Amino acid sequence: MILKLSRPNPAVLAALEDLGCRARVLTFPFGTFVVALGLDPSALAAFQAMDGVAWARTAGSRPILAAREQCPEGTRVPLGAIEVGGETLSLMAGPCSVEDREQILTTARYVAAYGANALRGGAYKPRTSPYAFQGLGQAGVELLREAGDAAELPVVTEVMEPGDVAAMTPFVDCFQIGARNMSCAPLLRAVGRSGRPVLLKRGPSATLAEFVLAAEYILLEGNAQVILCERGIRTFETATRNTLDLNAIPVLKSMTHLPVVVDPSHGTGLREAVIPMARAAVAAGADGIVVEVHPDPSRAKSDGDQSLHLPEFRRLVEELRPVAAAMGRRLDLPDALPFGGTQIPLIRRAMGWGGSR
Amino acid sequence: MILKLSRPNPAVLAALEDLGCRARVLTFPFGTFVVALGLDPSALAAFQAMDGVAWARTAGSRPILAAREQCPEGTRVPLGAIEVGGETLSLMAGPCSVEDREQILTTARYVAAYGANALRGGAYKPRTSPYAFQGLGQAGVELLREAGDAAELPVVTEVMEPGDVAAMTPFVDCFQIGARNMSCAPLLRAVGRSGRPVLLKRGPSATLAEFVLAAEYILLEGNAQVILCERGIRTFETATRNTLDLNAIPVLKSMTHLPVVVDPSHGTGLREAVIPMARAAVAAGADGIVVEVHPDPSRAKSDGDQSLHLPEFRRLVEELRPVAAAMGRRLDLPDALPFGGTQIPLIRRAMGWGGSR
Amino acid sequence: MILKLSRPNPAVLAALEDLGCRARVLTFPFGTFVVALGLDPSALAAFQAMDGVAWARTAGSRPILAAREQCPEGTRVPLGAIEVGGETLSLMAGPCSVEDREQILTTARYVAAYGANALRGGAYKPRTSPYAFQGLGQAGVELLREAGDAAELPVVTEVMEPGDVAAMTPFVDCFQIGARNMSCAPLLRAVGRSGRPVLLKRGPSATLAEFVLAAEYILLEGNAQVILCERGIRTFETATRNTLDLNAIPVLKSMTHLPVVVDPSHGTGLREAVIPMARAAVAAGADGIVVEVHPDPSRAKSDGDQSLHLPEFRRLVEELRPVAAAMGRRLDLPDALPFGGTQIPLIRRAMGWGGSR
Amino acid sequence: MILKLSRPNPAVLAALEDLGCRARVLTFPFGTFVVALGLDPSALAAFQAMDGVAWARTAGSRPILAAREQCPEGTRVPLGAIEVGGETLSLMAGPCSVEDREQILTTARYVAAYGANALRGGAYKPRTSPYAFQGLGQAGVELLREAGDAAELPVVTEVMEPGDVAAMTPFVDCFQIGARNMSCAPLLRAVGRSGRPVLLKRGPSATLAEFVLAAEYILLEGNAQVILCERGIRTFETATRNTLDLNAIPVLKSMTHLPVVVDPSHGTGLREAVIPMARAAVAAGADGIVVEVHPDPSRAKSDGDQSLHLPEFRRLVEELRPVAAAMGRRLDLPDALPFGGTQIPLIRRAMGWGGSR
Repeated sequence: MILKLSRPNPAVLAALEDLGCRARVLTFPFGTFVVALGLDPSALAAFQAMDGVAWARTAGSRPILAAREQCPEGTRVPLGAIEVGGETLSLMAGPCSVEDREQILTTARYVAAYGANALRGGAYKPRTSPYAFQGLGQAGVELLREAGDAAELPVVTEVMEPGDVAAMTPFVDCFQIGARNMSCAPLLRAVGRSGRPVLLKRGPSATLAEFVLAAEYILLEGNAQVILCERGIRTFETATRNTLDLNAIPVLKSMTHLPVVVDPSHGTGLREAVIPMARAAVAAGADGIVVEVHPDPSRAKSDGDQSLHLPEFRRLVEELRPVAAAMGRRLDLPDALPFGGTQIPLIRRAMGWGGSR
Repeated sequence: MILKLSRPNPAVLAALEDLGCRARVLTFPFGTFVVALGLDPSALAAFQAMDGVAWARTAGSRPILAAREQCPEGTRVPLGAIEVGGETLSLMAGPCSVEDREQILTTARYVAAYGANALRGGAYKPRTSPYAFQGLGQAGVELLREAGDAAELPVVTEVMEPGDVAAMTPFVDCFQIGARNMSCAPLLRAVGRSGRPVLLKRGPSATLAEFVLAAEYILLEGNAQVILCERGIRTFETATRNTLDLNAIPVLKSMTHLPVVVDPSHGTGLREAVIPMARAAVAAGADGIVVEVHPDPSRAKSDGDQSLHLPEFRRLVEELRPVAAAMGRRLDLPDALPFGGTQIPLIRRAMGWGGSR
Repeated sequence: MILKLSRPNPAVLAALEDLGCRARVLTFPFGTFVVALGLDPSALAAFQAMDGVAWARTAGSRPILAAREQCPEGTRVPLGAIEVGGETLSLMAGPCSVEDREQILTTARYVAAYGANALRGGAYKPRTSPYAFQGLGQAGVELLREAGDAAELPVVTEVMEPGDVAAMTPFVDCFQIGARNMSCAPLLRAVGRSGRPVLLKRGPSATLAEFVLAAEYILLEGNAQVILCERGIRTFETATRNTLDLNAIPVLKSMTHLPVVVDPSHGTGLREAVIPMARAAVAAGADGIVVEVHPDPSRAKSDGDQSLHLPEFRRLVEELRPVAAAMGRRLDLPDALPFGGTQIPLIRRAMGWGGSR
Repeated sequence: MILKLSRPNPAVLAALEDLGCRARVLTFPFGTFVVALGLDPSALAAFQAMDGVAWARTAGSRPILAAREQCPEGTRVPLGAIEVGGETLSLMAGPCSVEDREQILTTARYVAAYGANALRGGAYKPRTSPYAFQGLGQAGVELLREAGDAAELPVVTEVMEPGDVAAMTPFVDCFQIGARNMSCAPLLRAVGRSGRPVLLKRGPSATLAEFVLAAEYILLEGNAQVILCERGIRTFETATRNTLDLNAIPVLKSMTHLPVVVDPSHGTGLREAVIPMARAAVAAGADGIVVEVHPDPSRAKSDGDQSLHLPEFRRLVEELRPVAAAMGRRLDLPDALPFGGTQIPLIRRAMGWGGSR
């Protein structure tokens, strides 16, 4: 059972305690809730009638706290200088993996100069093959922090197991839950309790309903600073690494009040498709873009094929600007950007062949 | 074997005839080609060396005529007042099915007034259930023609079997091949020979490589007026009817010179998601939008849930305009459109629930 | 509206005629039905009450004639010496394409000697690429007939367009509707009217409900001799050409009374996986197996990778026999089969690599 | 770099140490290997030439230790009275969740009496909704142990986070990695180090190549007691909860030496389909079956729709016996089983409707 309080009433908690129920009170900008799981549904009516109780609901298979109706105006998640979900577009950029100090510092300074408002980079890397680069671990987290500080950007990085949350928390502005771990309840609970914002990536075979339910795990720990990230789903199509599902944007916006950003790097797997799909995401109503950028993608230890070169990031921002304006969104950029230089060709490789079976 | 001619040389055809090969000459705006299938590959070198032969290639598993390299500047397909693939955005609008004279005339006049440049409507309807409305058939084709004439719009309608092409041709400006028939070779050949432009919809489980190969069937009949239409693929997601795959736009643009339009109605199945996804499609670089519009979607005989009400079509155009401008595309609209009236709420139904398994 | 008659009553048809409804009477082994589409549902009650009417139902989105409840004991489709759906397992074998007289005769005689009870082979070939071998057409149909006669086997071949049905009918014992055409209504109606049994293959992205609705189109033409064929669906998995969905067998058996056979050749795309999956299909309750066999798969003009060598067909039968016995099914074999000869190795190629993205 | 040793040679490890490489020696029944990751590939040749080195290989994107060629005869994993992968079929049965002492004891005794050779049951439950039953946790692990002891069956249960492995190890005979966690590297490493056999379930959107790579993570910790479990993949089909991919059996058998079992409960989601698909799995060559059984599925706290009633488990064994015999496999059963009693109807619910979109 979940109750929404319209005003504090200690009798509510006392009544729950009398029933032997260990209730928790969650306070969000959009209201105060009491979570009392395991209670017999027959108790509902009595609580519903209590003073200070706006409503009481039986928990079922749908999200309650993350549902749009709890916060029709939409949640904004503060991250560095902006609020994700606010008027300014969120632009999280950086390499797939933190590889060394120079790589991450160079990238951080470049993307900060051209409009990024958060720095992303992986230190703990979930890899399909145990022989692939597994990331620098905690050392990588600390390098990322250093680069974020140098470029004055908040940092976002993935956490892969609950046991790592405590050591990472002092260095991290926003925890990322990777697509493979979207439905890993212990991890969702751990980042929920961290007090940090969470960038939650959609699992490659998760429905949108399941995606919002994963966010609900985090909210149930009292943390509503959850940013949902569409990053492509796995389908039969092999021309692209994943199928970026932009339908997710309007549908999620109707399901939940949480902000929605899009990762066109994983969503396509093709550098040449990243900028068009970033534009499309903004036009569909996304609150921001998460994008992989690397000083030398050909030498990247992971995901080089989908990482933008540094000047391509500048071009991305250049191309996003008019689309953002059309959508009434802002991109906060330094005044004197040297835009309009050399034209960067978008399509350099033939994409898509090899895909008939 | 396919040869590209740099200039006419009767000796080429004579040599093919000597080899017992029934060659066909295809003339496109982007070149003249000789198609000589069934020839032994060893003959290639001799033809390659002939005067007037730009190149000769063995036909394999990839498209030749539809490949981007044949026409790097992109093909434009004339349709009514515009060229699909040109600067003006293609806007094909109309009901899923032609139901009666009033319905199609009302819709035609409305969408024409608000910027549509083609009228779409189904007369032969491919339906999953034999008990569902199967369309008005040839009578529907003729009603569509009448409505197109009244609104001064070219008409697009689906053909389902080769045997119907002849009777439909006098009434139709552009044949549609539906998603279920994308790989139906006899039908592709028949519309290829019709001389009419073809709107080819991607099959719900077709890879992009297979999609372009289907177009190649049409080009091989000498018809390069093919418009590719992304309309959503079938995936595990159940919140939307299909998963609109906008990755298809940049990838197809690198694979083929044919114009690419997007159908957000079938691609989402949800009226509320149509406008955001139409904006996204244009931002991703689509050459146009195909959209279902109905005077009273709640009474539509097919696809009511995804059909826009008439005023929503106006709103679609209103919202597309700034995104098109950001992309350097035009929407040709009457001067005195009464835009900016009552705000039409976008999200009226909760979308997406019921999708966890 | 569909009515089931318990006994003839001319008044029923007369009443329908009075209402201006062009009703059709369909007679099946499992009952006589009147199909009266387009009638107002309010008429139902009156007909329900008429003498000789067992029940009357409004047609909706579910099959009526193909539904299990119409024939709980299951339909048997006579084909050559056996009934598909009966005690003897159906074994349809032959090359993907009819290529020449020797190839089809050799194959026909071999598979007949080792237990096949139908000969399959493609003459009209649906191919992804227009440059791939498109089949011998009507000449191939006639060669197949000749081989079937020589080997005393009924023949099964695919028809791709309604206009070909008439010319093919005299030569064909069973029409195949290929996977790509599963939902092509004009074709379904045409084979329905042919009076021949129909092997209906499941579309690569068709749900089971849609599959049975496709069969309903055929039954509505008065033809209940429909054999459903599971042949693999398209999924994200790339180790196999398709994902053979054997769940389809028990589910279809609960949905419909039509017999169900399985094609492990297309369902796997891998010769080495054909025999294990054929065994699995029989153990799951399939009524038969459709399998590709070729005298020299390495030179096959289509689908060589998934075609069994002739001795592998013998091995298939050898391995199916005990599983069929475990299921209470028979394989009718000549008495003096030279079984137990050289062991044929099953796995000769490494399968499955290259499938991580 | 991975080296296989043909005989011990301390110089190999010394040479690696000289290169600053922290090598690990892994000893399996099928050979002794040295894992030396991070080494420059140029060092390979020198090691290849050393005495006692059978071969040296650069680690790439394919499994090495789990590859079939390392152990062509196949790995057998001892579990209780049998070896999974041996002649006797593995039959792991039990409820989805351990709910209370009586439920798990009743089930354990019943399935043991009718031929199960391992008891499965969830204590830590990964659930889509945070409001769904999350399992009894460590208390559930201990109840499962008690029931396993009472019924003389080894126990298999899921572990969800690395931090739980230590506390669970004393109570558990085999750790299960659930489908959602298949690619969770920290968890794979943790169970790898536990020394216990591991039942590794295929992720719902994992390719077979990715599945074997997940197993490689476990082997790299020195633990080759890995049992692979096919449990259905997520596809567009909605008639079944998942699509059980039995193609996986022959393909995995050619890729890896690890035993393969099948879970038809999750693979179908439909109680009525469990027995046919279990038969099919055995006929396809599976080494065993994992199946959900509950004393009262209608009151199960999770997965009731797919759980067998107790007598249905008896029927499962009864129906598996002849198929196992046809495959040359054994089911070890008590002598005096009261088989052949009341016929249990298989299909009681109509399955599959609702699946057209």
